[in-house]
Amino acid sequence: MDGIIVYYPIFGNRQDQYLQQIVSIDKDVEGLSHRYIFNMYQNIRFLDPGNTKKSILPCTPLAVIKILEYLRIYNTILPYGNRLHGRTITVINRSEVVGRPLAALLANDGAHVYSVDIADVQEFTRGVGLRKRRHEVVEKPGWTLNDCLPLSDVVISGVPGDKYKVPLELMRDGAACINFSSERNFTPEVKEKASIYVPAIGKVTIAVLLRNLLVCDHAPSYRPILTVSQRLAQNKIDAAAQGVDEKASAEPVIQSTA
Amino acid sequence: MDGIIVYYPIFGNRQDQYLQQIVSIDKDVEGLSHRYIFNMYQNIRFLDPGNTKKSILPCTPLAVIKILEYLRIYNTILPYGNRLHGRTITVINRSEVVGRPLAALLANDGAHVYSVDIADVQEFTRGVGLRKRRHEVVEKPGWTLNDCLPLSDVVISGVPGDKYKVPLELMRDGAACINFSSERNFTPEVKEKASIYVPAIGKVTIAVLLRNLLVCDHAPSYRPILTVSQRLAQNKIDAAAQGVDEKASAEPVIQSTA
Repeated sequence: MDGIIVYYPIFGNRQDQYLQQIVSIDKDVEGLSHRYIFNMYQNIRFLDPGNTKKSILPCTPLAVIKILEYLRIYNTILPYGNRLHGRTITVINRSEVVGRPLAALLANDGAHVYSVDIADVQEFTRGVGLRKRRHEVVEKPGWTLNDCLPLSDVVISGVPGDKYKVPLELMRDGAACINFSSERNFTPEVKEKASIYVPAIGKVTIAVLLRNLLVCDHAPSYRPILTVSQRLAQNKIDAAAQGVDEKASAEPVIQSTA
Repeated sequence: MDGIIVYYPIFGNRQDQYLQQIVSIDKDVEGLSHRYIFNMYQNIRFLDPGNTKKSILPCTPLAVIKILEYLRIYNTILPYGNRLHGRTITVINRSEVVGRPLAALLANDGAHVYSVDIADVQEFTRGVGLRKRRHEVVEKPGWTLNDCLPLSDVVISGVPGDKYKVPLELMRDGAACINFSSERNFTPEVKEKASIYVPAIGKVTIAVLLRNLLVCDHAPSYRPILTVSQRLAQNKIDAAAQGVDEKASAEPVIQSTA
């Protein structure tokens, strides 16, 4: 057995939190153990001082990161860990499962993040010139989505419910738009204004879950020696990556307008 | 003889303009003939219907473009010709030699450009969703640099005179900054706020001049067969490119802070 996925909710109460902590961190492919969550918010990327064992990140936020890397929103000419420096990103929804960890990850990588929820707007940044080692959070009293959208190069939305739509008229021309809600948070007109539109991230999330399965093995490089189940996982990741490249899926995952 | 460079000014009056037009377009490595200038502003990239003969672009604006490509400000996941879509760029100085053609080139490639001069601010864009085939220019009455800087991911300055300095306090954290003036338009503190800072572009301009010499030959691919002087030029381009890669120059051309 290489990894454990638990189909939460099981008890639907605090016993579920107990279960999350009882999974061995060597098998926790979902990245839900306290140690992984702590490392994520603290911008600690490895488990060991030699930087050989990666700390596991939760699948859905990591899927968005991997999509942004693929889309070259991450600038690989900048040093690793700072590759979003200069990017302004709005994340709509601040759930504990996706929205808040995602805002933290993006800010830890150097982005200026506006985290927007029904109640308020929070700013996640590492400060001017990325002088801080990890992100800090500041309340933006009186701010709403209307203040954030005109400033943002990237708009990431994950509001549950089919009523919610991102107000495109406030968005920057050429923004990159990513929807991680199971509902469509962007109306079809997004294609006429965005430079890049990703309508769904499910396939990448599954690939990332399999990636975590491989990384959990904690080999410095996880490709050379694989167990049968790992080989299977690697094949699926390769297939998923190919699907993205070739825009082969009926609903293109990555869509470039213009 | 493969190309002609004229060290203007010669007469310092309209006779110089006459000279610019009298150079054969097959030898015009500076890209100053009317046909090349017209093509540049009209976003016409080739001389022939088969798209095999590139229209020559003036060296200094093209050097800035090549630097932005190297720095991955151009996003190669977007279609060729639209790779600056979503970028907001301020160009300070609107001279006919560099500032104005540069603003036009950037807007033709999809950027939202603010062209700032002492007198006014002009906006160069291809419209929402890049619906227009070439850029259009709109006056921004009442706007100054102070309105443009907080919106811009990229700040390009070329103001002659050592008195002028870009007001960094108005600039976005993590902006990419490029100076094409022979004077320093950015104070050293730029390194504490920019994600990328390019203090001078002279070496790249020379490489681009040599590139134009090769492109002027108008072969579909200009590498296979080279004359002796072209071989020499190619070697110098390779050397220049290597210098950029290895940050070998005493004054690093590309400087990543943070």
